[in-house]
Amino acid sequence: MSFDRLIAKIIETKNPTVVGLDPKLEYVPNFIKKKCFEKYGQTLKAAAKAVFKFNKMIIDEICDIVPAIKPQAAYYEMYGYQGVKTLEKTIRYAQAKGMFVITDGKRNDIGATMEAYTAAHLGSVKVGNSEYQPFGSDALTVNGYLGTDGISPLLEACKEKDKGIFVLVKTSNKSSGELQDKLIGDTPVYAVMGDMCESWGSELIGKYGYSLVGAVVGATYPEQLNELRKRLPHTIFLVPGYGAQGGGAKGIAGAFDENGLGAIVNSSRAIMCAYKNEENCPEEDFAKAARREALRMKEDITSYIEFK
Amino acid sequence: MSFDRLIAKIIETKNPTVVGLDPKLEYVPNFIKKKCFEKYGQTLKAAAKAVFKFNKMIIDEICDIVPAIKPQAAYYEMYGYQGVKTLEKTIRYAQAKGMFVITDGKRNDIGATMEAYTAAHLGSVKVGNSEYQPFGSDALTVNGYLGTDGISPLLEACKEKDKGIFVLVKTSNKSSGELQDKLIGDTPVYAVMGDMCESWGSELIGKYGYSLVGAVVGATYPEQLNELRKRLPHTIFLVPGYGAQGGGAKGIAGAFDENGLGAIVNSSRAIMCAYKNEENCPEEDFAKAARREALRMKEDITSYIEFK
Repeated sequence: MSFDRLIAKIIETKNPTVVGLDPKLEYVPNFIKKKCFEKYGQTLKAAAKAVFKFNKMIIDEICDIVPAIKPQAAYYEMYGYQGVKTLEKTIRYAQAKGMFVITDGKRNDIGATMEAYTAAHLGSVKVGNSEYQPFGSDALTVNGYLGTDGISPLLEACKEKDKGIFVLVKTSNKSSGELQDKLIGDTPVYAVMGDMCESWGSELIGKYGYSLVGAVVGATYPEQLNELRKRLPHTIFLVPGYGAQGGGAKGIAGAFDENGLGAIVNSSRAIMCAYKNEENCPEEDFAKAARREALRMKEDITSYIEFK
Repeated sequence: MSFDRLIAKIIETKNPTVVGLDPKLEYVPNFIKKKCFEKYGQTLKAAAKAVFKFNKMIIDEICDIVPAIKPQAAYYEMYGYQGVKTLEKTIRYAQAKGMFVITDGKRNDIGATMEAYTAAHLGSVKVGNSEYQPFGSDALTVNGYLGTDGISPLLEACKEKDKGIFVLVKTSNKSSGELQDKLIGDTPVYAVMGDMCESWGSELIGKYGYSLVGAVVGATYPEQLNELRKRLPHTIFLVPGYGAQGGGAKGIAGAFDENGLGAIVNSSRAIMCAYKNEENCPEEDFAKAARREALRMKEDITSYIEFK
């Protein structure tokens, strides 16, 4: 129940990180694009096929050392329904390789509509007498601006199907403070949202002490990471903003509890584009470069925390 | 520029309403489902095809009297990538029939990712030397929890391509107040967000006095509708929650300015399911029933406002 499956994978791999698959076409090596363009022309279908090939080769290289991937929905929607098909295929491929999948969709709506998003991304849908899991991801990022009735449909489904959500609390971007840092009484908006996460998850706590309601807290705000770790003892953190966005491993250490658990740190571009950043790395070796960067990140992050 | 195209359509049809296309399969009449199941089995593909047929027949019946449709992304994602294909087809079909399309996706993310969402839903994407508009909608609902840098990529594209966004300000659901009504100093969160909309749109005002940054304000909160109309003079409102959710036409009147402009009111279920609510309406006439309900709604809403 809750994030137990994810935490077990983190313990097994001794790696509290997740690889973000946000595959802009410009990140995909030319040898892959060329093949797809030859076969399908310069079309959205070709782009979607190239992205899937790219993802698949990265997943093959990292699935034994990284517990999870986080595909960002925007980068798939960008290639139309064909791109969305690649999102679905990527989720299933990673799961078949034993990985935990967090769909980064930041979905939000009123209750009835959240039921539809829940069915789409985490649950199942009936067509006549048949039942399907359209995307079948393991977790979904969501935005809690609408309050409890936009979250509760997710809780039911997560409980039943052993899945989880991450609610945006303090995001990694520069202007996150415009609303999130504003004070409600003495409490910043992000902490009010964090308290809601604790409350939503309070009856849904798994064996490692964390509930199925996690929170997104940016690596770029180490002070808030520390503060929120103490304030939200049952809320696991998804921490974006490491690397490319400027968050350092030392600052992230405060996201973890005394057992080295309670957080998973994301890196996207630095891993997908590792082959561009390495000196003299042939593009054919992009997935191996991704693995090297994933290992480097693991070392970097874990050098500041202690697994017990 | 901005919402001029939408407002011109509202004036032309004398109808400040939008039909929400949130097509659960259970809303689709059996004669449509039966055909699709016979052809494609009880599959997601069949569901997606049935939904498109349903949408198409409603659009055919309402396109001369209603200015816009608002497909809700969740109900398409619910049928996997096939459902998302139906979203794309629905957008293009409605536009070909002269309608303005608001994709209700409530998307939100950091800047770089919002660029991808912008390209997906409102803008265009390059594949090699070819350029595509993946969904090509006219407007998108978004969530402003991340602040300015999650909104600015949209502004550029909207300005360039004559499109608009609606930012969640005060949502129609019961628990919207949990965060949105909390006070920051003397100002509720929804008004802080509303002020941000005014500010984001301040240099992007069209010929009717409204900017390309609109706001979502629920019909279920008439007091806030009134207050926000005065507070946000350049922000057009998308008003959900009429009918099924309990918002009445009288309460909504405060969303409009002295010229009868400044707002567009949504109804989804009551229109899609009108044939179920009418006495003795054969399901084959579902689209005609939708038209009758759309006309009834128009009369109801406009009886409280005056077009000048």
